Amino acid sequence: MPLAVQYAGARSIVTAQVDRRPPRPGEVEIAPAYTGICGTDLHIFHGDMDGRVHRPAVLGHEMSGRITAIGEGVTGFSPGDPVTVMPLRSCGACAACQGGHQHICQLLDFIGVDSAGSLQERWTVPARVVVPLPPDIDLAAAALVEPTAVAVHDVRRAGVSEGDTVVVVGAGPIGVLIALLARRAGGSVLVVEPDAYRRDFISRLGFPTVDPGSEDPAAAVEDRTEGAGARVAFEVSGAEAGLATAVQVLGVRGRLCLVAIHPRPKSIDLHRIFWRELTLVGARLYERSDFAEAVELIHDGTVPTDVMISTIVPLGDAAEAFAAMESGRGVMKVLVCTGAVR
Amino acid sequence: MPLAVQYAGARSIVTAQVDRRPPRPGEVEIAPAYTGICGTDLHIFHGDMDGRVHRPAVLGHEMSGRITAIGEGVTGFSPGDPVTVMPLRSCGACAACQGGHQHICQLLDFIGVDSAGSLQERWTVPARVVVPLPPDIDLAAAALVEPTAVAVHDVRRAGVSEGDTVVVVGAGPIGVLIALLARRAGGSVLVVEPDAYRRDFISRLGFPTVDPGSEDPAAAVEDRTEGAGARVAFEVSGAEAGLATAVQVLGVRGRLCLVAIHPRPKSIDLHRIFWRELTLVGARLYERSDFAEAVELIHDGTVPTDVMISTIVPLGDAAEAFAAMESGRGVMKVLVCTGAVR
Repeated sequence: MPLAVQYAGARSIVTAQVDRRPPRPGEVEIAPAYTGICGTDLHIFHGDMDGRVHRPAVLGHEMSGRITAIGEGVTGFSPGDPVTVMPLRSCGACAACQGGHQHICQLLDFIGVDSAGSLQERWTVPARVVVPLPPDIDLAAAALVEPTAVAVHDVRRAGVSEGDTVVVVGAGPIGVLIALLARRAGGSVLVVEPDAYRRDFISRLGFPTVDPGSEDPAAAVEDRTEGAGARVAFEVSGAEAGLATAVQVLGVRGRLCLVAIHPRPKSIDLHRIFWRELTLVGARLYERSDFAEAVELIHDGTVPTDVMISTIVPLGDAAEAFAAMESGRGVMKVLVCTGAVR
Repeated sequence: MPLAVQYAGARSIVTAQVDRRPPRPGEVEIAPAYTGICGTDLHIFHGDMDGRVHRPAVLGHEMSGRITAIGEGVTGFSPGDPVTVMPLRSCGACAACQGGHQHICQLLDFIGVDSAGSLQERWTVPARVVVPLPPDIDLAAAALVEPTAVAVHDVRRAGVSEGDTVVVVGAGPIGVLIALLARRAGGSVLVVEPDAYRRDFISRLGFPTVDPGSEDPAAAVEDRTEGAGARVAFEVSGAEAGLATAVQVLGVRGRLCLVAIHPRPKSIDLHRIFWRELTLVGARLYERSDFAEAVELIHDGTVPTDVMISTIVPLGDAAEAFAAMESGRGVMKVLVCTGAVR
């Protein structure tokens, strides 16, 4: 029986044997290779999402792997093919789906949260959520396709153009990816981050940084733009102070892209939004085109996956990996290796 | 010496004689006919804007009148011409102006707030802020060009399209104008308003209404849209509850246009903005093209100025008019007549 990493309740990650489920018509079975642990997984680990997550739950939605079995009627895949999964199962019938926004389906099944994820040795999913990978891609790197797709979507929603001054508030993995892609889109990017490790990490990638503990980000942006302010800001911190910074740094008609999850209502300077005619856009997940672009960005080396992957642990050490990530310090991306590496 | 209505300090409106100032090169002198009192004037009256308004201050920025004298070098105007004023004096040099957004100039002089307004018998202003009116326009109606321009701008910023379900939160004069123009743009408009007088007023203009005191606006919108939610919401209430409603009623990828002034930061459901990928746009004032369109909408009778103008008082009764407007009940638009009606 294959092994799976399960969330059993707040701060409890266990490894258990689970039944292998052969693919039904329209499904495929995958042997996951690498799975990244992300912020949402940590929220679940903390017990903050127990209302949504059915326990025991197999987590994992940032993954790469290889096809092991193919259900009836599925074409285009062969055993051994390297793949990733775009972990969204939409209903197809709600107003969002009918409007072409399947990724924000009102009844969305986010695979790895609402249903079983990739932190297991065998994983059966609908073929339509499987995304083929180039044969020569590095599978550890490919586990970063999903977070890269988030950043592709965010930069597109924010509308970054050549020459824009862009401020990224928060330099966790998503903030780093957004900074990289905003720079690629022609933006002149400044990163605001209070944590010294993360500030150092992103400055090694060539980004100027501001420590909001010792310098006023809005003043720093004013200096760099001769008083005009930034064209685009990304709120990737999830903190009220970060949100305030993202509003303050923007110039007239600037765009604030809301990436971080703010579970509770937060106070925001609406007068500034009115006064400067700012635009605030919510950005959640990704669309199929974002995912396809993310595969390319990983494959062509645009995303420096070698430095972004802090460590890779075996499946049996997943519990320790969650605990280590909790501190949030000194670590960027942690992958769990579940087997089928080559 | 001409008379002027002056704000002398919190809750103090006085009538005083002021010097007539002949137009300098590039200026014109106007005899104002009618001036509307708006929400900003009431904020000033309450003493809330004493940090910005130099006392004694001549208020008034929603006006109509006739040219009385023309400064050197000014062409295109003759004495007796009916005109209104787009009361924005921009610097021309800041990032906003250079970017083509003169109306949100970072050093904007909002005439009637930052400098002397139209509540006086003679008013000298730069010719470039003067907007000609059709010769047959009703001058009382024309005092509503400025608030109509606000609504034109708001509906444009919100991007209302044919068939959109639109929710207007707050049915003061600006809310009423937005509802009218959103309907004209093809929207199916629902108005949320707790005040019985205002609800009755707008329902007579053919709009369905919701009293948030007795019905849940979000549920009402869900019912009308088969669960999809609204495409556009306008926050015109200035209240935290109104803001919450405007966020709640929107469907996926909906747009919230922030019209009301929220002087202090307010709490907002950022998770909903993220989850449904909403867009929030600030809308302030108007551009020249909005003003030109507003002149047409008043002239062609699209705006029912006859019912919107609750009362017209003579200049000497301006203090009473401010006091009456304070209650905010049983009154839509109050005009002060300063003289040159024909």
